Amino acid sequence: MLRFTTAGESHGPALVGVLEGMPAGLPLLAEHVDEQLARRQQGYGRGRRMQIERDAIELLAGVRAGETLGSPIAMLVRNRDWKNWQEIMDPAPRAEDPERKRKVTRVRPGHADLTGLLKYDRDDARDILERASARETTMRVAVGAVCRRLLDEFGVRIGSHIVRLGEIEACRPDPMPDDINAAADRSQLRTLDADAERRMIERIDAVKREGNTLGGVAEVVATGVVVGLGSHTSWDRKLDGRIGRAMMSIPAVKGVEIGMGFGASAVTGAEVHDEMEPAPRSVRTASSRM
Amino acid sequence: MLRFTTAGESHGPALVGVLEGMPAGLPLLAEHVDEQLARRQQGYGRGRRMQIERDAIELLAGVRAGETLGSPIAMLVRNRDWKNWQEIMDPAPRAEDPERKRKVTRVRPGHADLTGLLKYDRDDARDILERASARETTMRVAVGAVCRRLLDEFGVRIGSHIVRLGEIEACRPDPMPDDINAAADRSQLRTLDADAERRMIERIDAVKREGNTLGGVAEVVATGVVVGLGSHTSWDRKLDGRIGRAMMSIPAVKGVEIGMGFGASAVTGAEVHDEMEPAPRSVRTASSRM
Amino acid sequence: MLRFTTAGESHGPALVGVLEGMPAGLPLLAEHVDEQLARRQQGYGRGRRMQIERDAIELLAGVRAGETLGSPIAMLVRNRDWKNWQEIMDPAPRAEDPERKRKVTRVRPGHADLTGLLKYDRDDARDILERASARETTMRVAVGAVCRRLLDEFGVRIGSHIVRLGEIEACRPDPMPDDINAAADRSQLRTLDADAERRMIERIDAVKREGNTLGGVAEVVATGVVVGLGSHTSWDRKLDGRIGRAMMSIPAVKGVEIGMGFGASAVTGAEVHDEMEPAPRSVRTASSRM
Amino acid sequence: MLRFTTAGESHGPALVGVLEGMPAGLPLLAEHVDEQLARRQQGYGRGRRMQIERDAIELLAGVRAGETLGSPIAMLVRNRDWKNWQEIMDPAPRAEDPERKRKVTRVRPGHADLTGLLKYDRDDARDILERASARETTMRVAVGAVCRRLLDEFGVRIGSHIVRLGEIEACRPDPMPDDINAAADRSQLRTLDADAERRMIERIDAVKREGNTLGGVAEVVATGVVVGLGSHTSWDRKLDGRIGRAMMSIPAVKGVEIGMGFGASAVTGAEVHDEMEPAPRSVRTASSRM
Repeated sequence: MLRFTTAGESHGPALVGVLEGMPAGLPLLAEHVDEQLARRQQGYGRGRRMQIERDAIELLAGVRAGETLGSPIAMLVRNRDWKNWQEIMDPAPRAEDPERKRKVTRVRPGHADLTGLLKYDRDDARDILERASARETTMRVAVGAVCRRLLDEFGVRIGSHIVRLGEIEACRPDPMPDDINAAADRSQLRTLDADAERRMIERIDAVKREGNTLGGVAEVVATGVVVGLGSHTSWDRKLDGRIGRAMMSIPAVKGVEIGMGFGASAVTGAEVHDEMEPAPRSVRTASSRM
Repeated sequence: MLRFTTAGESHGPALVGVLEGMPAGLPLLAEHVDEQLARRQQGYGRGRRMQIERDAIELLAGVRAGETLGSPIAMLVRNRDWKNWQEIMDPAPRAEDPERKRKVTRVRPGHADLTGLLKYDRDDARDILERASARETTMRVAVGAVCRRLLDEFGVRIGSHIVRLGEIEACRPDPMPDDINAAADRSQLRTLDADAERRMIERIDAVKREGNTLGGVAEVVATGVVVGLGSHTSWDRKLDGRIGRAMMSIPAVKGVEIGMGFGASAVTGAEVHDEMEPAPRSVRTASSRM
Repeated sequence: MLRFTTAGESHGPALVGVLEGMPAGLPLLAEHVDEQLARRQQGYGRGRRMQIERDAIELLAGVRAGETLGSPIAMLVRNRDWKNWQEIMDPAPRAEDPERKRKVTRVRPGHADLTGLLKYDRDDARDILERASARETTMRVAVGAVCRRLLDEFGVRIGSHIVRLGEIEACRPDPMPDDINAAADRSQLRTLDADAERRMIERIDAVKREGNTLGGVAEVVATGVVVGLGSHTSWDRKLDGRIGRAMMSIPAVKGVEIGMGFGASAVTGAEVHDEMEPAPRSVRTASSRM
Repeated sequence: MLRFTTAGESHGPALVGVLEGMPAGLPLLAEHVDEQLARRQQGYGRGRRMQIERDAIELLAGVRAGETLGSPIAMLVRNRDWKNWQEIMDPAPRAEDPERKRKVTRVRPGHADLTGLLKYDRDDARDILERASARETTMRVAVGAVCRRLLDEFGVRIGSHIVRLGEIEACRPDPMPDDINAAADRSQLRTLDADAERRMIERIDAVKREGNTLGGVAEVVATGVVVGLGSHTSWDRKLDGRIGRAMMSIPAVKGVEIGMGFGASAVTGAEVHDEMEPAPRSVRTASSRM
C-alpha cells in the first residue's frame, strides 16, 4: 500500500518527495529525516556539492503535531546551490536563453546523457543529467527515513557498512555490532574494519590525484525483520524483487545480491543450507562509483 | 503513462502536486497554471477562504527555460491562511498540544469525518477533514492546467459551464460559443444563460441567509478530441471509466454522466442514434454543494 | 490490494479472469461463481447469444479443497459458441484467410469500432468489437462473485434491481426487501414493481418488433457496509471514484450516481441532510442499452 | 504499457498467463511460445517433473489469424501431472479431505514454506509451495516469448548461456556467436565452453549421487537494443531497476548484476570506462539452485 514518488533537478530550486499509504499515528519529526540526510552527506572524499548542501526537509503535508495523519507525506528540500544556478536552471524563460550557458553537449559514457537526449529529443544534455543525478537519492533517503520510523516501531533495524572499496576488502567483525549504523558512522568511510579503512583512504587520495574514481560494495543488514513482508503469490509482490528494483534503480548501482548471493552459485545446496543464518538478512549492492 | 499525485492539508503549510510522464519540450509557464487556479477561485457566493487565498504555484521541478524536461513536474502552492493556523496545524509538536485548539469532535454527515476517525484511529476530526477538503482540488486544477497545455498542442479544448443550480436550469445557447470557458468566465456563476443566472443569484442570496447551501450540475465539453484516447481492451484503460473515476473522486460530486447520460436510459436506441453528435463530447457532473 | 484482469474475445475460444490479492482461507466453490453467471444470463428479451451460452467456470488456480490459497485465482469460461466461430476467430492462421469471412467494415456509431480500427490500425472491425463486447462482463461477474464471497463473511450484501426501462419508472417497495436480489430475481426484468414490469414487457415487445432497443437504469444497494472502505487521503483511493470507474467502464453505461446523485444537485444542503439514510448505500447506473 | 500476470499451482489443473498492452498486428503463433517452453525444459540433470511435462500453450485470447489484436493475450498450459494430483489438489472439496493426503508439515529452509504458512495462516505447507514453485516460471517464459516476438521486429535479440556451475567457470568464446541461444542450445548445459561442460556434467553426477544440488550463474545478453527503453525520470521507470525486479523475483535467484556488475566495484572509473562495450548489454544472475 506504500508508494512514493520523487521530483527535482540536481541544480533546480528544490527536491520534492511524496510518500503515500503510511499509517496514521506514527510519531515523526523533521529531525528524524534530517538525521538520515546528514548521514547521507558523510564520507571521506566526497565532492564539492556535499560541502555546499546541508540538506534539511520542510514537512509540507501529512504530519501534524509530530504524528502522521495517514494522508500523503510531502517533503521539500531547497537546493542551497540554486542561487548559483538560477540563471541556468530557471523554470521560466530568460532573455539570455538563446545562447544558453553551461550547455552540455559532450555526453558521458555510462550515463543517461545520450539515451536521454535521443529519447526526450533535447539538445542540451543538462536537460537529462540534472534529473539523472545522484542528488535524486536525497529524496529516497528522506522517504526511507519515514519508513525507518515505521520499522522502528516493530523492532526492525536497517544498518549498512562498506565491505569493499576498489580492490580493498573490509573484514566483518564477529560478532557484528548491535547497532551497525552507529558503528559505521564512526568511520569516515563507514567501514567496520579500521585497518582496511586506512588503506582505503590512501587509495582514495591516490585515485583522486589522478582525477579518477573508485567503485565499491555496500552491505545492508536488516535485523528483527518481521515475518510475511512481500508475498510468494505474484511475481511483482516478492520482496526480493522489490529490493532488486529499489537497489538497481539507484544511479551507478550495477549489482545486487541477497543472502549468500553470487556466492551461493559456487557451492552445493547442502553448503548453502549450512551457511544459512536464521535471523539477519543482508543485501549487498555494487556501485561503479562511490 | 501520465500519473499524478497530490498532497497537502487545507490549512497546512502548503499544497504539493507531482505530475509524471509529461513529454519533454512542451512550452509551460507558471502563468499557465496560475490562470487556471484564478479561474477556480471565481464564483458568486464563494466562502471566506476564497478571499484569503490567491493561489499561485511555484514550479519546483520538471521545467526549465519555459519547457518541460520529461521529468516529474512538481508544483507548490503555499497556503496564505497558514499564518493563522500555524499553531493548530504545525507538523512539529508544540507545548500547548495537550489541550489542542479547534479540536473537532462533532462529525458532519456526508463527510469523511466519522469514517476517517474510525479508519485512521484519530480522536480529532480535524486530522481527517484537513485532507478530505475541497482545497485538495487546487492541485488537481494545477495538474490539469499542465495537461491542458498538452491538449492545446493537439487542438483539444476543454470548456465547462453550469447547467443547473438547485432547481434552476440554464439553457444552452445554440450554437455553443467557440470558446466556452471565455464565455462562461464572463458570468459570475459560469453559466451561459443570463436570465437563469439572475434567478440563480437570487436563490443563492436567499439560501445564504438561511445558512443553507445549494447543489448543481456542471457540464464539461471537450472539442477537437483526438481519436484513440483510452482503450477498449482492458476494463481499467477505458476512457469513460477514467473520467468516471476522476469526477467521482472530487469531494461532493455525487454523479457523472457522459453524452446523453441518464437521458439515454429513457429513450430507444434509434433515438439515441439520432441525438448523437459526432464532434464534441460532454460530461456532466452533479455536486451536492457548489 | 485486490486487483483483477480479464481476457477473451466474444466469439473466441474462452474467457479468462484472474483475481489477485484475495485472502487465503475463504470458502469458495465454482458453484458460487456459476450461480452469479446464471443470474447474469436472465432477463426478458435477451438476445440469441444468451440462449447459446450456459456459462460455467473452471477454477484453474488459487483454490484448493474449497478454500482460497491467497494465490491468484484464475477462472476459465469456454465459449459454447466457439464451435460455430472457429473458422473466423481461430488464433492460428488459416488458408482461407485472404478472403476473411464475416469481415466487418460498417462501423457502428457509439461503439469502439471506428476508434479501435484507427488506434490499433486494423481493417476488420471484428478485431475490435470482439473484445469491446458486453460478453467481457462475464468475467467481471465471475471476479465479482468471488469478492461477494468475501463480503458475505462480513455481512455486506450487494443487491440490485431495475428502476427504469425506457420511459417507465418502477416504484421502490417501502420497506425494501431484506434480500433484494432474491426478490428481483423472481421478476423477469429484475424489477420490484409488478405493475411497472408488465408495462415494461409490453414496451420491450413493441420496441423489438421495430428492431429497436431500450435503455434503463439499475440501482445497486449495498447493506451492512463496513466502515473504512476506500480512503479520503489520495484521489485514486476514494471509494466513490473506484465505483465510478468500475461502473463507467462497462460497455453501454453512460452515467453513474451515488446516494441522492443528480437529485442532490436540485435541492439545498439542508434537504440533502434530511434525505440522508445512514445504513444502505445505493448506486444507480444508466445504460443506453439494457 | 505492457503488464502481465500469472496464475497457477505447480500440481494444479493448469497455468495461466495474461499479457496486456501488446500492440496489435504482431505476427504470433502458439509455436513461437511452445518453442521457448521446450527450451525451458532442456538441461542435463533435470528433475523427474521435466520428463512428465511437455508444455504447450493454448492461445485463449488476444490473437486472431496469427496476429495480435491489441487485447489481452491469455495463454493456458495444462499440467500433465494433474491427473496424478487431482485428488490432492482439487479446487473442489472432497470427502477424504479431513485426513488430507501428502500434507506437508516439514518446512524447507530457504523456501517460502514457513513464512507463507504464517502469513496466510495455513496448516499445510503444500498450500504455499504449490505456488512458490519454479513451475511458475513456465508462464513467465510464455509471456517472455510473446515479448521476444515484438523485440524481433526491431532486431533486438536476447540470448543466454551458463557461465558458472558450482565452482566451475565457463570461458566465453571470443568473439561471441551471433546467435547465442542457437549455440547454447546445442550444449546439454547451455554453456559455450565444451571443456567446462564436461567437468560440469561430472560434477552434477557426483552431486546427484549425494542427493545434493548445485548453484550457478547465467548470463543474458541483449544485442541490437534500441535506445530509450526505460527512463531516467522516475525511480520505478528505470530499466536497470525493472531488470533487477524481474530477475530477483525468480525463485532461487539470489543476485543480479548488469554490465561489469560487482566487477565494476573493484576497479577505478577509468578502468570501467575502458571495459565499456557499446553494443551488447549483459545481465548475469546467480541462482542457488540450477
